Amino acid sequence: VLPQVGGQCAELYADKPIYDIPALPVSTGRELIERLQRQIAPMGAEFHLGQEVTRLTPRTDRRFEVETSAGLQFNAGCVFIAAGVGAFRPRRLAVQELARFEGTQLWYHAPPPAAWAGRKLVIVGGGDEALDAVIRLAGRSGTPDAPASLTLVHRRDHFQAEASSIAELARLRDTGAVQFVAGQITGAESIIAADGQARLGDLQITGGDGAVQTLPADVVWVRLGLVPQLGPIAQWGVALERKLVVVDTEKFETSVPGIYAIGDVNSYPGKKKLIVCGFHEATLAAYAAAAHLWPERRIQLEYTTSSKRLHKLLGVDTPGD
Amino acid sequence: VLPQVGGQCAELYADKPIYDIPALPVSTGRELIERLQRQIAPMGAEFHLGQEVTRLTPRTDRRFEVETSAGLQFNAGCVFIAAGVGAFRPRRLAVQELARFEGTQLWYHAPPPAAWAGRKLVIVGGGDEALDAVIRLAGRSGTPDAPASLTLVHRRDHFQAEASSIAELARLRDTGAVQFVAGQITGAESIIAADGQARLGDLQITGGDGAVQTLPADVVWVRLGLVPQLGPIAQWGVALERKLVVVDTEKFETSVPGIYAIGDVNSYPGKKKLIVCGFHEATLAAYAAAAHLWPERRIQLEYTTSSKRLHKLLGVDTPGD
Repeated sequence: VLPQVGGQCAELYADKPIYDIPALPVSTGRELIERLQRQIAPMGAEFHLGQEVTRLTPRTDRRFEVETSAGLQFNAGCVFIAAGVGAFRPRRLAVQELARFEGTQLWYHAPPPAAWAGRKLVIVGGGDEALDAVIRLAGRSGTPDAPASLTLVHRRDHFQAEASSIAELARLRDTGAVQFVAGQITGAESIIAADGQARLGDLQITGGDGAVQTLPADVVWVRLGLVPQLGPIAQWGVALERKLVVVDTEKFETSVPGIYAIGDVNSYPGKKKLIVCGFHEATLAAYAAAAHLWPERRIQLEYTTSSKRLHKLLGVDTPGD
Repeated sequence: VLPQVGGQCAELYADKPIYDIPALPVSTGRELIERLQRQIAPMGAEFHLGQEVTRLTPRTDRRFEVETSAGLQFNAGCVFIAAGVGAFRPRRLAVQELARFEGTQLWYHAPPPAAWAGRKLVIVGGGDEALDAVIRLAGRSGTPDAPASLTLVHRRDHFQAEASSIAELARLRDTGAVQFVAGQITGAESIIAADGQARLGDLQITGGDGAVQTLPADVVWVRLGLVPQLGPIAQWGVALERKLVVVDTEKFETSVPGIYAIGDVNSYPGKKKLIVCGFHEATLAAYAAAAHLWPERRIQLEYTTSSKRLHKLLGVDTPGD
């Protein structure tokens, strides 16, 4: 669903140095992706970005119907799943009593101002995402859509965030603009109104020492960071094991012939989640895919040093020609 | 046995462009090896070049005794076989009757002048190596160590060699300095002298049409090019299949625990002889070797983007530290 190619390299390591790409002693994630893009340019691959494959259905002719969230439809000869660790989604609270309030009093994405204006807002988390939200909302103080109260809940009084944010939070706590409660939400009260509608009552917060306290809350906004989730892939009929796609090591083929899985999303004996392994997996899967697409052809191994056909494809001169 | 690192890349493709190393859109073999050398420099590996491992014996403590042709001895915790397609050795004639004359009347390496001076010399082959030898020896005509006659035998009257060599051969045939016989040596006469010593008699040459002719010869010099041979590896007790070392795809381990095989020398389902695959094989084998060397440790996957331990090893700064 990302708007650009590169996955984790572009999203998580764009400016971080990578030292273990063979023959590339150092490169940032962004540089790596740029180099790979340049290298595959002669192949003229088409990209359809910013959308998710929502449906994948085998046809009767060994091919696949592929449909995306943007409404595109493809008749695909084979499919490569290179989904990394999956789509990144907000980490969720494992508090059953809260689940019924999702979208009204419990939020994993930014709630609309109307949800918190004049109400007791609790933000959960101890990283940059949580602190940024607290600081931003504390800034609304005195405006019509300011929350009635603003409480940060984190399992301990220690934060993994920018030093400037941590300092600003300390200041806001000193002035009383923000309350802080150390502990984890372990339960929640539901109040059933006369009309039968449930409403969130007090939260139950359990501290590191096991002591339980209650915290009144109208709205809970969970900002515990992102975790990868497999998403629609789980529905495609390929065998999974611990949320990973099982492949063989000859073709990197899934349990469905013609569907291959490469990179962090796959699983096989010896698997290491390293870019260098993804390159190998993609290579063997590409040979297997060619054999799947053209079962009548003999797919030969050609070397880019010597193959005139590959030189032509790459748009380079054949030495000595 | 090569005097430098880099194997085929340094030996066969040093100046040829390679286009299929991921993230390296183009590189010669030499550049590739230089980059890899630079990248592994921080690890401080020691190299012992220009020698062959002649003996490899398992010890009783899971380790190995390794002995080289230069007389070095190692007590090795594990062994990686990265021998490529093996050592390149001259392609041999499959003519049983000739074998007994190797080193006296049959030569695969350049024979000493005394072997051919004043004698009927037959050179076998149709490539540059054979034509170069013919042209060089034809140049000895009139000197004391000129052969009595010079005949080139090749299966057909068509040569895969430099255009200038082919033209020079044609000229030498026109002047009668070189005879040419089209066909393959399929047999040879042995003459047993009074002292019981065998001496080479006529060669039997079979043409493409099946016709057999005889060719008198005192010395046969075979110049059919080089072919890779496994060499001493065949004696180490690791399971082989079609002259390749069989490995699993989890550890790239051979049939002998603690001996790994990576690159063109190994064989497994799906194997492609590509550099990119060698990188993956080396990586997984390295993890397996670490587990073999330190069975009591838990070998963790660390990323060069984030591991302080790896940054220290590489001699680089940890971002944000």
